[in-house]
Amino acid sequence: MEILQKVQEQILSYVKEIADDKSLELLGLLPNGKMLRSKLILKIAGANEESIKLCAVVEMIHAASLLHDDVIDDATTRRGKQTINALFDNKTSIMFGDILYSKAFTELTKMDKEVAYTISNAVTLLSVGELLDVELSKIFNTSYDKYLDMIYKKTASLIEASAKSAAILANKNRDNFALYGKNLGLAFQMVDDILDITEDSEKLGKPAMLDFVEGKVTIPYLFTYERSNEQDKTKLENFYKKELSNDETLWLKNQFSTTNAIQDSIALAQKFGSNAIEAIKDENNEDLVLIMKAMIERDF
Amino acid sequence: MEILQKVQEQILSYVKEIADDKSLELLGLLPNGKMLRSKLILKIAGANEESIKLCAVVEMIHAASLLHDDVIDDATTRRGKQTINALFDNKTSIMFGDILYSKAFTELTKMDKEVAYTISNAVTLLSVGELLDVELSKIFNTSYDKYLDMIYKKTASLIEASAKSAAILANKNRDNFALYGKNLGLAFQMVDDILDITEDSEKLGKPAMLDFVEGKVTIPYLFTYERSNEQDKTKLENFYKKELSNDETLWLKNQFSTTNAIQDSIALAQKFGSNAIEAIKDENNEDLVLIMKAMIERDF
Repeated sequence: MEILQKVQEQILSYVKEIADDKSLELLGLLPNGKMLRSKLILKIAGANEESIKLCAVVEMIHAASLLHDDVIDDATTRRGKQTINALFDNKTSIMFGDILYSKAFTELTKMDKEVAYTISNAVTLLSVGELLDVELSKIFNTSYDKYLDMIYKKTASLIEASAKSAAILANKNRDNFALYGKNLGLAFQMVDDILDITEDSEKLGKPAMLDFVEGKVTIPYLFTYERSNEQDKTKLENFYKKELSNDETLWLKNQFSTTNAIQDSIALAQKFGSNAIEAIKDENNEDLVLIMKAMIERDF
Repeated sequence: MEILQKVQEQILSYVKEIADDKSLELLGLLPNGKMLRSKLILKIAGANEESIKLCAVVEMIHAASLLHDDVIDDATTRRGKQTINALFDNKTSIMFGDILYSKAFTELTKMDKEVAYTISNAVTLLSVGELLDVELSKIFNTSYDKYLDMIYKKTASLIEASAKSAAILANKNRDNFALYGKNLGLAFQMVDDILDITEDSEKLGKPAMLDFVEGKVTIPYLFTYERSNEQDKTKLENFYKKELSNDETLWLKNQFSTTNAIQDSIALAQKFGSNAIEAIKDENNEDLVLIMKAMIERDF
């Protein structure tokens, strides 16, 4: 998609404006993401100068949040590439995140006021979501509501805001597109949480089954815990935040299977996917339906 | 100054809007600063709803930058209080910084567009300044220009933007007040760098003479290095980033004295102070002159 190249060029041009050599060097070291948020914006608002700038701003915000995320998670690889905190140090990753955040906010102030508000408010939610993620990773969380609130804020809020902002720019129904983005975001995070369990480390570009070791009780773990007997519940609690042996991993995978946890997590992600499609049923936007379907109809 | 209390209340009200208990708890643990930026804004724009909101936004940005700064410097105390990274962990300090930053930016989008641009652009400079600070702390920096560029970005840019934004709100000459803020900011950082050497740890609320240990070659070190003979230059290079013995500290203090480094650093800070006062000579704002004078005419 050539237009995504234009978004990359816009990001490069923004970072060049900062006139700091180190920032330019660091930008070149970031992995290329899927640019999901840009794809949505372009499918809703079309490709024009305004929408490309919005894409660039949102991608910079997303990159900034990942730079801070990698420090928080002590992540050394992302998408198979070494992270900035691994290549340099935490300081560099924190500060480069701040630079991308603030440059994005600076460019937002030149845009439509409602768009600027919508995106920056989502960044507040996103940051609260990250903090909630840290809090929920301290003790074994068994609350579905807390998990849902956290993934809404951490992942769905910026996708929701991207879709809504694109609708504002294109004079389309902002509520419908916001609802699409929110549900897509929730489905996206659940799919991500499922893949952590079902994919191998090579495909993930990071160690497999890392979430539980890091204290993250994601949707498959919530389901399997809820449906386990007392003895197995205790076993799950003992496995929490531990590097598991092969036997223990095998037991865990079997537990997922007997409790239907993976299957039902997929079904739940699909339900959010249907909600997303339902939200834009009157918008005649087949591309957005395809994006949503591709995300939830994959092989797990 | 009762009006500063109103700024604090506005900050509290903004953080309450985020509806996150942890954020509210963390806000309560931040040390009370001098609120220099708020004082300037209020002296330029007067006290009204708009200016108080601007103060709150700027103080939140300043607090956010300190939260990230403390992680970067591994600081355990600030103003005699334990830092958030010491009380909790780096994660919490990074994320709470992001929350304060993004909430401040969200509120900026509701303000005058030029004010929003001026403040957010200063945050980009500030973040670049922090990164430059990290870079300059890696090897012994002997360039005055690099030092000046770094302290302008890291410290003066947000003070400059605060004064300029206040002038925009009050329909006053923005260039004059910006120049005042910039020079005051430069003087302020130099004074801070001098105090690191001349004050004891109790008064500083952190260990004394910490800058050089952390790799920061501040203005007194630049002067003393420049004026030292080859042998003493080597000695200074050997002391760089080292915990010094009492004898070594004594030698260093003597070197400052024989090279007039402290005295001339004070004179330089005073020169920036005079520039600040000169910039607003036609503005009839005696309070701003007094603020500047109080900063540079103190006992060192």
